[in-house]
Amino acid sequence: MRVEIWSDIACPWCYIGKARFEAGLAAFAHRDGVEVVHRSFELDPKAPAATDIPVLDMLATKYGVSRAQAEEMEARVAAAAADEGLGYRSDRIHGNTFDLHRLLHLGKEHGVQDALLDAFYRANFAEARTLGDPAVLSEIAVAAGLPADEVARVLADPDAYAQEVRADEREAAELGATGVPFFVIDRRYGISGGQPAEVFRQALERAHADGAVQLLPTGDAEVCGDDGCAVPGK
Amino acid sequence: MRVEIWSDIACPWCYIGKARFEAGLAAFAHRDGVEVVHRSFELDPKAPAATDIPVLDMLATKYGVSRAQAEEMEARVAAAAADEGLGYRSDRIHGNTFDLHRLLHLGKEHGVQDALLDAFYRANFAEARTLGDPAVLSEIAVAAGLPADEVARVLADPDAYAQEVRADEREAAELGATGVPFFVIDRRYGISGGQPAEVFRQALERAHADGAVQLLPTGDAEVCGDDGCAVPGK
Repeated sequence: MRVEIWSDIACPWCYIGKARFEAGLAAFAHRDGVEVVHRSFELDPKAPAATDIPVLDMLATKYGVSRAQAEEMEARVAAAAADEGLGYRSDRIHGNTFDLHRLLHLGKEHGVQDALLDAFYRANFAEARTLGDPAVLSEIAVAAGLPADEVARVLADPDAYAQEVRADEREAAELGATGVPFFVIDRRYGISGGQPAEVFRQALERAHADGAVQLLPTGDAEVCGDDGCAVPGK
Repeated sequence: MRVEIWSDIACPWCYIGKARFEAGLAAFAHRDGVEVVHRSFELDPKAPAATDIPVLDMLATKYGVSRAQAEEMEARVAAAAADEGLGYRSDRIHGNTFDLHRLLHLGKEHGVQDALLDAFYRANFAEARTLGDPAVLSEIAVAAGLPADEVARVLADPDAYAQEVRADEREAAELGATGVPFFVIDRRYGISGGQPAEVFRQALERAHADGAVQLLPTGDAEVCGDDGCAVPGK
C-alpha cells in the first residue's frame, strides 16, 4: 500500500497532521506494508524569499485582524500541536518554501525524505529557525543525511528538482486537492486535512480490506491463467 | 489516467484483448489523457527456452486432448482474432517469454514499449516466428526502434531487467490478478480478461467520471489552502 501526502513546510496542519497520520499508521496492523511518499505543495508560491517577515505580521495582514487576534489564532494551533507532543512557536518567519521542496526531492532519492521533512518542520515550527537562509537549510539537510555537495548543487541551481515540485503540484490539483495536508491511499482514496489518528487508521483498514484494486463486474471473458486459456461457456 | 496491462506474449487472449482494449480506448472521449503501461506476466515461467515445441503439441499435452481437438480449440481462438482483424497461426512455437519481457522493459525506457509488444505479438501469432532465437528477437526489437547495442547487452545479460519483470509479476499477484490479460485503471479498477471493447470504454468512462481519487467522508478537519488555515467550527 502506498500513501502519498501533499504538504507544505509552512502549513501548521500539515505538521500536526503528519503526527496524527503517523499515530494512525502505528495503530494499523499492516503498517509494515505501507510506503509513505511526501509530495510538494506550496501554500504561497509567491511568498518572498525573505528572512524577516514574522508569521504573526503575515497572518494579521492576510486575515485583516489585529496582531493580538493573530496571536489568539496561533495559540489555538499551538494547543493542537502540544496535543501531539509537538513544539510550536509563533515567533517564526514567513517565507518561500520552494527550495525546501526541491531539497525534499533530493532527500527522496537518498531515502531520507521523511527524516528531512521532520527536520524542516521542527526547525520551522518548534525552533523558529530562518529557513530562508541557505546556510541554515544546508545544515539541516546535511544533518538529515544528505551529502553536502549535492545539497550545495541543488541550492545553487534553481532548476534542480523544480520540475518535480511543479509536477507534484499539478498532480495535487488533478487529484482534487484544494488544500493541504492531502493524503492519498493507492491513488484511490483521498483524505483531506489533519484528521484525527483514528480516521487515518480506519482509512488504511478500509483500503487494505478492499484490496488495492476493485475488480469491475463484467461478463465472463477469455483469460489465460495457470490452467490455460479458458473460453467462457465452452 | 493510467492504464496498466499485465499480459504475456504467449497469451492469445492478451493479443486479442489488447486490440479490444484499444478499440474501447479509441471510442473514449478523453483518450488523449490516457497513458498505457504494459506489465510483465509469464503464463509459463518454466517453459523451456526451446525453439522446437509446436504450440499444438503443448496444448494437447496440457489439456490431455488429441491433436485434432487442440486444433479445434485453436480454431475458435483464431476466429476471435480474425474478428479483430488479427492474423493467427496455430503452427507457432511454444517457448519461454522471459527475455521478451526483459526487452519490453528496455522498450519502455525508450518509449517504444507498445510498438515492441505489438511486434512481438505479430511475430508470434500472425507470423509464427521463432521467438526463442535471439537473432529473431534482436531483429524485431531493433525494427521497433531499440538501439542494437542495448538489445544485445540485454539479451547477453540474463539479469538485465529481470528484477523489473519479477516486480511486475509480484504486483500482479498483490493486485489480485489470477490470469491475464489484467487491466488496472489508476490502481483503482481492475478488469480481468479480453473483454469486449465496450466494456473497456465503459470502465474508462467510469474511472473518468469518478475522478482519480475518491474523497473519503470524514468530519471536517483543519486544512490550509488559498484562504489560509481554517479551523473547523471556529
